[in-house]
Amino acid sequence: MLKSKDYRLVGVLGGMGPLATVDFMTKVIESTPASCDQDHIPLIVSCIPQIPDRTQAYKGEGASPLSELIANAKRLVDADAQVIAIACNTAHLWFEQLEKAVPIPIIHIVDSAIEAIYKIGSSRPVVGLLATEATISSGLYVDRGNSILRAQCKELAWLLPSPKEISEWVMPAITSIKEGNLKVGHALLIKAANALKDRGATAIIMGCTEIPLVLRSSDIDVPLVDPTQSLASKVVEWSTQQDVNLIQPRPRSIDSTSR
Amino acid sequence: MLKSKDYRLVGVLGGMGPLATVDFMTKVIESTPASCDQDHIPLIVSCIPQIPDRTQAYKGEGASPLSELIANAKRLVDADAQVIAIACNTAHLWFEQLEKAVPIPIIHIVDSAIEAIYKIGSSRPVVGLLATEATISSGLYVDRGNSILRAQCKELAWLLPSPKEISEWVMPAITSIKEGNLKVGHALLIKAANALKDRGATAIIMGCTEIPLVLRSSDIDVPLVDPTQSLASKVVEWSTQQDVNLIQPRPRSIDSTSR
Repeated sequence: MLKSKDYRLVGVLGGMGPLATVDFMTKVIESTPASCDQDHIPLIVSCIPQIPDRTQAYKGEGASPLSELIANAKRLVDADAQVIAIACNTAHLWFEQLEKAVPIPIIHIVDSAIEAIYKIGSSRPVVGLLATEATISSGLYVDRGNSILRAQCKELAWLLPSPKEISEWVMPAITSIKEGNLKVGHALLIKAANALKDRGATAIIMGCTEIPLVLRSSDIDVPLVDPTQSLASKVVEWSTQQDVNLIQPRPRSIDSTSR
Repeated sequence: MLKSKDYRLVGVLGGMGPLATVDFMTKVIESTPASCDQDHIPLIVSCIPQIPDRTQAYKGEGASPLSELIANAKRLVDADAQVIAIACNTAHLWFEQLEKAVPIPIIHIVDSAIEAIYKIGSSRPVVGLLATEATISSGLYVDRGNSILRAQCKELAWLLPSPKEISEWVMPAITSIKEGNLKVGHALLIKAANALKDRGATAIIMGCTEIPLVLRSSDIDVPLVDPTQSLASKVVEWSTQQDVNLIQPRPRSIDSTSR
């Protein structure tokens, strides 16, 4: 472990939504062994919510968020960030373009989440995915997850909500949470999670950063995987240690960006 | 009110401690009328806790935080912030030096808190102050508060904790909260708040950003003033409106820094 004065500065690309950014920061703080302020992870946080809606853009119904995402990522680089974590699952649809646009590594939220699934312990988990329509339709979790798992000779069965469950429960839940109607969002997500469990899910990924703001382990009988928490843990590990494997090796060396 | 795409970018100088920064951000979010992500206030947040302890520095027992405060404030300016809010009361002991070091205005937490006291309604409030030893001994609240009140022909009586109450209850409470022992901090602060109430306080200022993390209105019979909330409300007002009076007129024009 590095000394706290040498912890590496983590850039948080957030604001999508702002409460999810606060949830991510809280999870970073709670995952850090600390006995005073100075022991905590240094974060520079772009909580700038004026980024076009990611799901609308994916569906061709709104402007692309890419230029705003790049502008805010560069803002973090200019502020001396040495790695970036994106506190929004759906924004990872533009991960490759973002990665090309900045000279520092970006930790992928799916990579952290897939690691977390295997910590639950099942050898061939059946994993339900609650996420935005764009995250589900694009195969963000399924495709990247499978490619990681193939490389590790591991297996996983995916279980997705039906189009009706997405349009009637999952998306209205996420919109409600973004509006501040947490109770409405909570009730809808419990329905969607139970539907996945009833079809055989042995674990459920909360694959949109709004979901862990309301859904709790006590709400459902199967383990919940919280990618926000997985990403937070990875950020703590990355900031405090000399050498952390990001699952997907990056062409650029992390060390070459340190100051 | 401006359109959300024109909201002005607020720089948050935080990390003192990190949970207090998260509390401040949450209060900004909750104070903003919003129905989607894009309606929220844009924040760029320095949550970099490797700043020397403010109270220790004031007591001559540790390094000055000034150079780190200035470096992080400049980081926010470089990231396009148009105003700065400092999510730590004690750090305001270096307010004048910080103000000189950056080309954008800084909203003073005491100014926001003093405004809030008069919203409670008493014509001559007796205000108890819970804060760090440095904030209390330096007269940060009392001197700046009195100077604002004189200008407005208003009156206020101050009630400070005794040196024993500070050393046995208030400072150990703040340290416990920074260590993550919220329950210990909470119990000590209830004692300190009740002592002020018993001596005649008609309101109590929670003048350290760690205090509102645990102390609640339901804990005590007199109204609590939360400067973190006051600063958050002022930030929302400042970001979303064309023309906001900061109590103390600044030599620099805010408009000259807008982009």
